[in-house]
Amino acid sequence: MDKIKDFINTNKERILNELFDFIRIPSVSAKPENKSAMYDAAQYLKNAILSAGAERAEILETAGWPLVYGEKIIDASKPTVLVYGHYDVQPEEPLELWNSPPFEPEIRDGKIYARGADDDKGQLFMHVKAFEFMVQQNILPCNVKFIFEGEEEIGSESLERFCKQHKELLKADVILVSDTSMISLDVPTITTGLRGLAYFEITLKGQSRDLHSGLFGGAVINPVNELSRLIAGLIDAEGKVTIPGFYNSVQTVSAEERKLLNSVPFDEKKFYAGINLKNGGGEKGFTVIERLGIRPSLDVNGIWGGHISQGAKTVLPAEAHAKISMRLVPDQHPEEIAKLFKDYLQKQIPEDFTIEIEYLHGGTPYVLPFYSLELEAAVNACQKTFGKKPVPVRSGGSIPVISVFEQVLGIKAVLMGFGLESDAIHAPNENYPLDNFFKGLETIPWFYHFYKK
Amino acid sequence: MDKIKDFINTNKERILNELFDFIRIPSVSAKPENKSAMYDAAQYLKNAILSAGAERAEILETAGWPLVYGEKIIDASKPTVLVYGHYDVQPEEPLELWNSPPFEPEIRDGKIYARGADDDKGQLFMHVKAFEFMVQQNILPCNVKFIFEGEEEIGSESLERFCKQHKELLKADVILVSDTSMISLDVPTITTGLRGLAYFEITLKGQSRDLHSGLFGGAVINPVNELSRLIAGLIDAEGKVTIPGFYNSVQTVSAEERKLLNSVPFDEKKFYAGINLKNGGGEKGFTVIERLGIRPSLDVNGIWGGHISQGAKTVLPAEAHAKISMRLVPDQHPEEIAKLFKDYLQKQIPEDFTIEIEYLHGGTPYVLPFYSLELEAAVNACQKTFGKKPVPVRSGGSIPVISVFEQVLGIKAVLMGFGLESDAIHAPNENYPLDNFFKGLETIPWFYHFYKK
Repeated sequence: MDKIKDFINTNKERILNELFDFIRIPSVSAKPENKSAMYDAAQYLKNAILSAGAERAEILETAGWPLVYGEKIIDASKPTVLVYGHYDVQPEEPLELWNSPPFEPEIRDGKIYARGADDDKGQLFMHVKAFEFMVQQNILPCNVKFIFEGEEEIGSESLERFCKQHKELLKADVILVSDTSMISLDVPTITTGLRGLAYFEITLKGQSRDLHSGLFGGAVINPVNELSRLIAGLIDAEGKVTIPGFYNSVQTVSAEERKLLNSVPFDEKKFYAGINLKNGGGEKGFTVIERLGIRPSLDVNGIWGGHISQGAKTVLPAEAHAKISMRLVPDQHPEEIAKLFKDYLQKQIPEDFTIEIEYLHGGTPYVLPFYSLELEAAVNACQKTFGKKPVPVRSGGSIPVISVFEQVLGIKAVLMGFGLESDAIHAPNENYPLDNFFKGLETIPWFYHFYKK
Repeated sequence: MDKIKDFINTNKERILNELFDFIRIPSVSAKPENKSAMYDAAQYLKNAILSAGAERAEILETAGWPLVYGEKIIDASKPTVLVYGHYDVQPEEPLELWNSPPFEPEIRDGKIYARGADDDKGQLFMHVKAFEFMVQQNILPCNVKFIFEGEEEIGSESLERFCKQHKELLKADVILVSDTSMISLDVPTITTGLRGLAYFEITLKGQSRDLHSGLFGGAVINPVNELSRLIAGLIDAEGKVTIPGFYNSVQTVSAEERKLLNSVPFDEKKFYAGINLKNGGGEKGFTVIERLGIRPSLDVNGIWGGHISQGAKTVLPAEAHAKISMRLVPDQHPEEIAKLFKDYLQKQIPEDFTIEIEYLHGGTPYVLPFYSLELEAAVNACQKTFGKKPVPVRSGGSIPVISVFEQVLGIKAVLMGFGLESDAIHAPNENYPLDNFFKGLETIPWFYHFYKK
């Protein structure tokens, strides 16, 4: 295992070139017109796994974007690690805010800038190369299965179905995932919890057509004004979501556990300064760490209606739209929340209005017990390469498929991510520091090493 | 003058063909890329005036879109009518809601369907043809000047400047305009008041970049949620605009005048049924006619922010945008309102946020005294062709240049419009009934006839 450093030094340039080829494929899963890029990315991964030493690798068709499966079974009596990752990326828009083209990876100040540099192509690729190293050195201590999907950013529906239909194929002892972030390169981090998600698209319709704002303005309820009122009413002055019943299933976290979560190194000022703010916002009575980790939230992800291009059109729009999502915590369930949300909005709109509320996707929250074999292996691996124990965090983000794995396959996932909060995932100028990439690559083989025992 | 009916019958087809050629030019003033269409429309009008009998017609360059000026001076001692109209039209979007292409005029059920069919190409063209008739018959009783602009839908800035610089050229006794609507084809209508306008574009900025809604959601104020809160707060539960000082300059309309305004035939139920509503909205304590005619209003004309294309992007947007406009009544002044609005919004935003408030355009409100020579001529003309006196209305719409004419040239405008509320101006499927077009054409010469005395 100690040779991993030599492997990195010797192969650095080649590894980055391979990663860059992968990143260059614009595999944005939210764009249906993107079919060839999605298949190119899947094909790329299949080849990458095979070159790295897999005995078997294939592209599996689904009703949505294809899955990539691969494996190397060294000994049926040894434990099996299922490596999960996703080759799809978030849409690159708004393009004008990127300093370099999103699908042309560029190294500046020691960081790879590109869509997917971190989330999740960069992080996923560490696993492929760690596997290559172990096979090359003939020191692979566990069986390995890979499952890579192309729908993580749009809800993982196909993988969920596949998982239910192919439990035997995916049978393993633990799932290993790098799709989360660390507090800093000095503070290795294991994510022990994920928030769930419920994501909606809303269309609010008033009068039957766009109106002239002079001839009707003042005598008609404007759907955009009305949507604004609805949205404004979803969070109260205390920062609480107002949907009746929204907090009913939220686990009360003990004072002790809250203390532990708040003990990790976290500089609130620095956190906000990194996004050019002095203060944040959110639910009163909770710290920032708690707001992100153990409390649910509600955000508008997009809003549109009326005249949104250049110039001054004096229109009173007939409809208004928003994408609204909620991050959920144990034991909130996205489908229950969807029902509460729909019922609430229906009651809020004017008599003449109609509202369509489409549940776009969601996922249940996830928690990994702090004392477990899975976590111990990850803790030891980090101890080995970082020289210190990692801290546990509950992430504010969601990886819906993690709780599906738990429910369907009955195994826990270890979320050993090497990104940083500053990597701007889902935003313009996404990046991934080279140091993080190579530290991740160095750490992963040690997880296998400690887990095999 | 009586021969106008024969003129219409004989030339119907030719007149419509000429109008259709004019409508086919997609002269959307809000689109800067539209230069050639704007010049084509101006050129078309110049030729149309010349063919109709003007002694002089020219295209006048401005800092914006060109003006078209034309005249026929028969006798300096006779009164001069200045005919105003605009050849620019509103943007045609949303295209998918049109039943026929917006710039391919089509007659269905006795109506011309096209962008600009009513506002203002159709209405303007009645004046050109009425002039042609009077010249042809050699019965023109007044001097005529034409001033047609290409910026009515975007604020009439160039015409305003031109007007100030060329008072002598535009010198006249009255301005005649058809750019308003009638209550119905049975109820001729003279618009005696226009609301003013103040139109703004707002950009609200929070954190320095788009964020992942999981990793930050619940600990950061979301600019879209915040913009919704700002907008929701602009109108209170009584339907009143909350901007401090907003109503300070609003003229109190006497009980007697309110009674007169409300005496015109107006079916509230039918008004709302026409846009598929049972109820409207607006300021409590006022009728629909009053809300539209003598009370100011505030509407969002457009809103956008975050992810607005297909799919589910879990982004917490860095900024949010809205176009917000207010209709003003005497004696509100758009620039005073702009100041009040800006001051108010600045005080409403979170400490860390910035807000840009751009004043896109505006115009002051207008009132024509009910007892005046100008109005009398219009009343008599309608009496002649409709067989009944027209009713006075205060329109909710704005024609900013009308108050500029009043301020700069010192003359009043007669707003004798022949459109209908159902013409869907500024919206998909704009139309203009043929009956209205020809009734307008028939009535206009009579205005000259009665005004000359």
